[in-house]
Amino acid sequence: MTCCGVDMAMAQPLIQRLCIIGVGLIGGSLARALREAGEVGEVVGCGRGEDNLQAAVRLGVVDRYETNPACAVVGADVVVVAVPLGAIGPVLRTLVPHLSPTTVITDVGSAKGSVVADVERIYGMVPPNFVPGHPIAGTEQSGVEASFATLFRGRRVILTPLAETSATAHELIQRMWGLTGAEVIDMGVCHHDAVLAATSHLPHMLAYTLVDTLARLDDRAEIFRYAAGGFRDFTRIASSDPQMWHDICVANREQLLKMIALFSTDLERLAGAIRSENHAEILAIFQRAKRARDNLYLE
Amino acid sequence: MTCCGVDMAMAQPLIQRLCIIGVGLIGGSLARALREAGEVGEVVGCGRGEDNLQAAVRLGVVDRYETNPACAVVGADVVVVAVPLGAIGPVLRTLVPHLSPTTVITDVGSAKGSVVADVERIYGMVPPNFVPGHPIAGTEQSGVEASFATLFRGRRVILTPLAETSATAHELIQRMWGLTGAEVIDMGVCHHDAVLAATSHLPHMLAYTLVDTLARLDDRAEIFRYAAGGFRDFTRIASSDPQMWHDICVANREQLLKMIALFSTDLERLAGAIRSENHAEILAIFQRAKRARDNLYLE
Repeated sequence: MTCCGVDMAMAQPLIQRLCIIGVGLIGGSLARALREAGEVGEVVGCGRGEDNLQAAVRLGVVDRYETNPACAVVGADVVVVAVPLGAIGPVLRTLVPHLSPTTVITDVGSAKGSVVADVERIYGMVPPNFVPGHPIAGTEQSGVEASFATLFRGRRVILTPLAETSATAHELIQRMWGLTGAEVIDMGVCHHDAVLAATSHLPHMLAYTLVDTLARLDDRAEIFRYAAGGFRDFTRIASSDPQMWHDICVANREQLLKMIALFSTDLERLAGAIRSENHAEILAIFQRAKRARDNLYLE
Repeated sequence: MTCCGVDMAMAQPLIQRLCIIGVGLIGGSLARALREAGEVGEVVGCGRGEDNLQAAVRLGVVDRYETNPACAVVGADVVVVAVPLGAIGPVLRTLVPHLSPTTVITDVGSAKGSVVADVERIYGMVPPNFVPGHPIAGTEQSGVEASFATLFRGRRVILTPLAETSATAHELIQRMWGLTGAEVIDMGVCHHDAVLAATSHLPHMLAYTLVDTLARLDDRAEIFRYAAGGFRDFTRIASSDPQMWHDICVANREQLLKMIALFSTDLERLAGAIRSENHAEILAIFQRAKRARDNLYLE
């Protein structure tokens, strides 16, 4: 069969068999996007929660599932490990004996130094077919029901390939994420972790702490009753998955603690300015912040 | 002329002449809402920026304007002082000799203790026709162009009447805000300031400080480039008007400093848990916060 001179029988999807370990918001949305692009043959899901995997089949996100990662990866061109950071090491460890040398592996962890360290510990090196990755996308929702094909459209996906990473594996993962509508960018491992500590991990710590501080006040019911629209937006990320964020804190501990310390010093400086009624200092802080934020989004 | 048995010539609006001092987002939106409800005769605007006042006339928010508050309030049933907190005292001072004893005055300041103190200083007492108020509504936008009639719909307006406040004046301001679609609630002055320090003033300090902390990092351009959707929501309130928030900090200093101290202690506790890899403690904080936030909005 030919169409426009192209032999359609020869048109192969980019990935013939994709294995998603952890079919949640990120893994599920990736599978949906690749399906919509028509660039994936079979999608095999894997995870611990069989209810979630059955939902993934019912929603058409995966074709079938396995609960044993060793079985799930058989014959896969690409394995995407989309489990919480703390589970990446254990998952990879069970996979090692079962992976074909041509299978390309990537992950979606929000910290990359800890993943690379896990991989080195398990494999004794970073295998050339492992490409560390991080899609900067998500909502405060979790689970395959929350997944949708356009989650990554217009977002950024950071890959942190190492000197050992094969160009072929790297290019395949670049093309895979490109098909979701994301902008794919390469970055060093440490630089990634520093940038994310500042723009994502620190804000989550502030939102969680703020809500927890208020939730432990005596008149919390009364206080929350008068929260306005700004509070809703400000605290949305405090509805994120606690286990996932626990894992991120631990994985990116050094960079995160550095950012918390910087922030705390600045908050204490602002408190000092308010205490001493240093009008110029208070105004300067707010003006710098407003200028930076307005420049960023031009809303 | 009669209609449905009601003599239309007798149907009076709730407020025959309304004077809005400070025709910005709040003052402008109140005027628009009362106009839409058909419950205001003439609206007289007043403010320092003549460009803004001309825009208010052009947009139909006010019928006419005066730049001198003494002239603006002549013959007004209700005067709404909708200027930044720091300007309320000076504005009231210029008004004193020109107010008729039947004119009801209210304000929209985000802190109430400082406003009551200003009023006491100026009048030597809190006049019975002064009703302190605070609509818990707003966006990060400012100015009359940003105003809209539905800003207060479904929001809460807190009034903090004092023992001295006349029941007639109180009821008029309750009815005025009720016409905007807001739920109108009475509260004590100190309680108002404590609640708002927690749910509004503290979050603004955190958002301003976070953006300022990041904006002063060497690789700020790079860092902001990778900010995801959560960051946009989280930092929206850092685009709020710096002068307005400077005034709020100063006006509600004691309550705000208390909340900053509580928050800082809790953030340090979280940092300590991360430093020592106290997994149970980290998880507990995030779980408590998620539960409180999910219960609050049920999104």
